[in-house]
Amino acid sequence: MEVTQTLHMNKGVGEVSYAMNCTVQSNIISRTRPLVEEAILKILSAEKVPESLGIADLGCASGPNSLSAISEIIDAVYGRCRDLGRPPPELRVSLNDLPSNDFNSIFSSLLEFYRKVRAGRKCKEVGHCFISAVPGSFYGRLFPSRSLHLVHSSSSLHWLSQVNSSLCCCYSSLVEIRSNFTSFYVSMQTPVGLGNKDFPRVNKGKVYISKDSPKEVSEAYSEQFKKDMRLFLESRSEEVVAGGRMLLSLMERRSSDPTSDSAVLWDLLSQALMIIVNEGMIEQDKVDSFNAPYYAPSTDELALEIRREGSFLVDRMETFLCRWDWGNHVGMTSDGVSRAAEQVGRMVRAVVEPILEAHLGAHIMDRLFMKYEDLVKYRYLKGEESTENLCIVVSLIRKKETTE
Amino acid sequence: MEVTQTLHMNKGVGEVSYAMNCTVQSNIISRTRPLVEEAILKILSAEKVPESLGIADLGCASGPNSLSAISEIIDAVYGRCRDLGRPPPELRVSLNDLPSNDFNSIFSSLLEFYRKVRAGRKCKEVGHCFISAVPGSFYGRLFPSRSLHLVHSSSSLHWLSQVNSSLCCCYSSLVEIRSNFTSFYVSMQTPVGLGNKDFPRVNKGKVYISKDSPKEVSEAYSEQFKKDMRLFLESRSEEVVAGGRMLLSLMERRSSDPTSDSAVLWDLLSQALMIIVNEGMIEQDKVDSFNAPYYAPSTDELALEIRREGSFLVDRMETFLCRWDWGNHVGMTSDGVSRAAEQVGRMVRAVVEPILEAHLGAHIMDRLFMKYEDLVKYRYLKGEESTENLCIVVSLIRKKETTE
Repeated sequence: MEVTQTLHMNKGVGEVSYAMNCTVQSNIISRTRPLVEEAILKILSAEKVPESLGIADLGCASGPNSLSAISEIIDAVYGRCRDLGRPPPELRVSLNDLPSNDFNSIFSSLLEFYRKVRAGRKCKEVGHCFISAVPGSFYGRLFPSRSLHLVHSSSSLHWLSQVNSSLCCCYSSLVEIRSNFTSFYVSMQTPVGLGNKDFPRVNKGKVYISKDSPKEVSEAYSEQFKKDMRLFLESRSEEVVAGGRMLLSLMERRSSDPTSDSAVLWDLLSQALMIIVNEGMIEQDKVDSFNAPYYAPSTDELALEIRREGSFLVDRMETFLCRWDWGNHVGMTSDGVSRAAEQVGRMVRAVVEPILEAHLGAHIMDRLFMKYEDLVKYRYLKGEESTENLCIVVSLIRKKETTE
Repeated sequence: MEVTQTLHMNKGVGEVSYAMNCTVQSNIISRTRPLVEEAILKILSAEKVPESLGIADLGCASGPNSLSAISEIIDAVYGRCRDLGRPPPELRVSLNDLPSNDFNSIFSSLLEFYRKVRAGRKCKEVGHCFISAVPGSFYGRLFPSRSLHLVHSSSSLHWLSQVNSSLCCCYSSLVEIRSNFTSFYVSMQTPVGLGNKDFPRVNKGKVYISKDSPKEVSEAYSEQFKKDMRLFLESRSEEVVAGGRMLLSLMERRSSDPTSDSAVLWDLLSQALMIIVNEGMIEQDKVDSFNAPYYAPSTDELALEIRREGSFLVDRMETFLCRWDWGNHVGMTSDGVSRAAEQVGRMVRAVVEPILEAHLGAHIMDRLFMKYEDLVKYRYLKGEESTENLCIVVSLIRKKETTE
């Protein structure tokens, strides 16, 4: 299976839409703010401050978060310029996501965005700020050479460009899979030397690495992550000026051994799917043949890939917890627990439903997420407070090239 | 009336859609090709050829034409590089239109576009080509300072940013008017010192300058054109490098006196509207209070504004005829004439229907354009072959600044 990942967000403001369920992603942007401010401070305190600052947000999606990172970056630049008593540089802001992202909806909010930015401006003088959209995969070149000073990417790099071919199953045609985060074009590429219908399912009953998954599964995922991260870093190394900065946040795995740590939200999804299988709504083969194009690396794994590629220095790396519910459910009433479980279900559904839907069909979704919520609730009632994820944010500096 | 023009194209491929009726605009792009090629030749033959070439298409719209100008420009650059035996520069391509343009549909065709460009590449070595979208009005700054080498704009600059306030009537609320070309946000601004309901309609029974329009009408239109053209040129003068080029095409008026020349297609529209008024489908005030945000200048008028603004030299200026039907209808059968008239009606409808619809209501459109086609047919039968427009294309060079 070859998957070209095309991150985008579903339209709409329904109760399971991304727009109504992006609190986790919004919190991650807020948590990375101090690192963004620090990076900007360093860029603007450099010996030679650029007159024109290239800024890119990779995987901007659409919805309430799509301009919030950029808004904070612009605020930070203007605030810092006020402190330094210098005129702000011209800002060249690029919003990137895959071509299937709803850029139209971002554009429709730009006038209001410009108005707000001007109204809340932290320094007297307001410089030019040019916003453009750059559609394409960030696992490849997107921007002109040496054109960027600051790259930001939040909650995007844990989406792989494709599921490693050693895990792939066969599809009868090109299928577009859309997720609230992501859309993929799944082509019917059969791994060389392997039959199609008889191709054994490696990750039976699971949709991501789990404790029960055979070793090949985590190896294939890890391999794909390495390939993708290298492509990402190589591409950015051409685009970011020497001394330029990157702020990247993505989901993180606690342990260095991917099978020793459980990815609870994915495990619960596999369990819910198997309930649906047992109820006869879908065949088990449908579940066995699906693997989510997602990977949460460990800190060490990410650091290693950055070191291996070699163009960027790690300035800072921080880990924090992301909650998928509103708060502590210990001691909650049964109603409270239900509401918390429902909330987790909705937020997960907002992210993964379209990916699942394309593979498994729309008819099972309501039932599937009802079961999912039941499982979350059961977990809460047992006192297992583990619907949190770890999130890692890393601040990188583009090294000077020896020829520079 | 204050109108913020937001050029965009309607979606869809219906029989009155822009996608099915953009032959005139497509022909204009083809006719300007030699001038585009000449401009590129000169840019690439300069003493110091840029390593990275900034190219912008202003008013790209969406639909079959939206990438065709850019495609021709890219082809010309690669062809010229092959002739010169030099590696092609990095291309930074910006597609501009107003924020309400359907950029999503352009992005959905980008993968295929890249594939075609690579397949048809005219030189061995293929350089990087980065395509981005820049939403916003070209009657203002859009791009970073000194970032562009070639600006292209086809069939867009005859759309004004607003209808001059001396012609404006009053609206009860903010109305979005969408055209296949254009959308406007019409706000309820009453001209200072004038009552609203009692404000006299200056251009009674007409929707654009006609021979019967009072002098104030053509003066107000001309005034607005001058303001807009100055804003356009001033903005571009900041963005285009010294020696950089602009290729602009827009509708042209034959005579220097705007009332001595008839804008046939608009006149016919006014006539058709008055028929609908006489049939009682709409009130005359609706027609009297509408003025199209469009202006076709004369060659002299355009040249004067370019000279006045002063940043650009006119390298070349050419005029050609644009036909709104497929060919010569003289000696046609009655059926043939009907078909030709129907075609003109559809092409005009594809452009102006949404503007009219917002002001006059959707219910009259079928009847209106039936009457419009009748008028075109009658004109043809009388032997008046005048559903053509003049189109002007001008090739400009950014002057060197004295400080440069």
